[in-house]
Amino acid sequence: MENQPTQQKILGVDPGTNIMGYALLNTNLNKSDVEVLSVLKMTKLVDPYAKLKYIYERINGLIEQYHPDILAIEAPFYGKNVQSMLKLGRAQGIVIAASLHAGMEVYEYSPRKIKQSITGNGNASKEQVSAMLCRMYPISESIEYLDATDALAVAVCHHLQHKVVFGKSKATDWKSFISQNSDRIVK
Amino acid sequence: MENQPTQQKILGVDPGTNIMGYALLNTNLNKSDVEVLSVLKMTKLVDPYAKLKYIYERINGLIEQYHPDILAIEAPFYGKNVQSMLKLGRAQGIVIAASLHAGMEVYEYSPRKIKQSITGNGNASKEQVSAMLCRMYPISESIEYLDATDALAVAVCHHLQHKVVFGKSKATDWKSFISQNSDRIVK
Repeated sequence: MENQPTQQKILGVDPGTNIMGYALLNTNLNKSDVEVLSVLKMTKLVDPYAKLKYIYERINGLIEQYHPDILAIEAPFYGKNVQSMLKLGRAQGIVIAASLHAGMEVYEYSPRKIKQSITGNGNASKEQVSAMLCRMYPISESIEYLDATDALAVAVCHHLQHKVVFGKSKATDWKSFISQNSDRIVK
Repeated sequence: MENQPTQQKILGVDPGTNIMGYALLNTNLNKSDVEVLSVLKMTKLVDPYAKLKYIYERINGLIEQYHPDILAIEAPFYGKNVQSMLKLGRAQGIVIAASLHAGMEVYEYSPRKIKQSITGNGNASKEQVSAMLCRMYPISESIEYLDATDALAVAVCHHLQHKVVFGKSKATDWKSFISQNSDRIVK
């Protein structure tokens, strides 16, 4: 495992073509705090093209405003049908490509992986995931849209997956711990 | 039907995540000529994210370089499986959103509609479509990639669908023809 910078800003996105949740999670070693928790509402945009244009412009706007290092995106790999997957793919593609263009790293997590990571149960409900996040961070329990907490969930999932141990990369044995933490060893 | 500008530049795109064909068709009333006929090759990019980033940057590069007015994109509405539709959707979404952001109009055509429009047969082969385009335009019959002629095909399909009659919009009866072409009526 390579060393990681200790401070990272994670943009979590739960993409959809009606409501797209997004969250910014600032991480520093094992600490993290929520900077932004919101949604893009596209329910009033009837034209599907208007929605895609809006996603393109807002995601680029968010990247420009907050300069995140990482995109963590919820990515269901199996959908109800090919039509819904095509629509979802369009929204995802815009968010992923804009992030890559800005030099961000991109990570995808399945809904099951995210739920497992936050609650310990891969089949947890949206409400259970939201309740756990409200215990972890000082965010309101009455979040208007669960899509916003879903976006935070994927950012937190990434953070938990890539937690930095001892301020550097995770050491799996004493030899690597010592070599990675020579300043912590009393000689 | 609304009046259209007489000169339009159509960017035709046949999206794919390995090879993406593109063509620029300049149209002036019922005349048209091929300005560009090419492909983006992504076969050497193993990482699927590298492909999406490449599509994002090249499509924005093409728009900046050629200033097309219209995107005509081949859009299969039914795919083999949800996985392939998700991948295709990502590529499509990037091309569509970048075009909309640049102020272009976007039109999607099914493969069947494109083949029907060019050859008169909705079940024509890629080779038959290519052969017909080679008769319509001074392009080489030995096009390296049929994806490039597929992209030209969707641009030509759009042009044929939106042909301008009498230099203005198509009149379907004498009354509308007279109202649209008052300067052509001897009083």
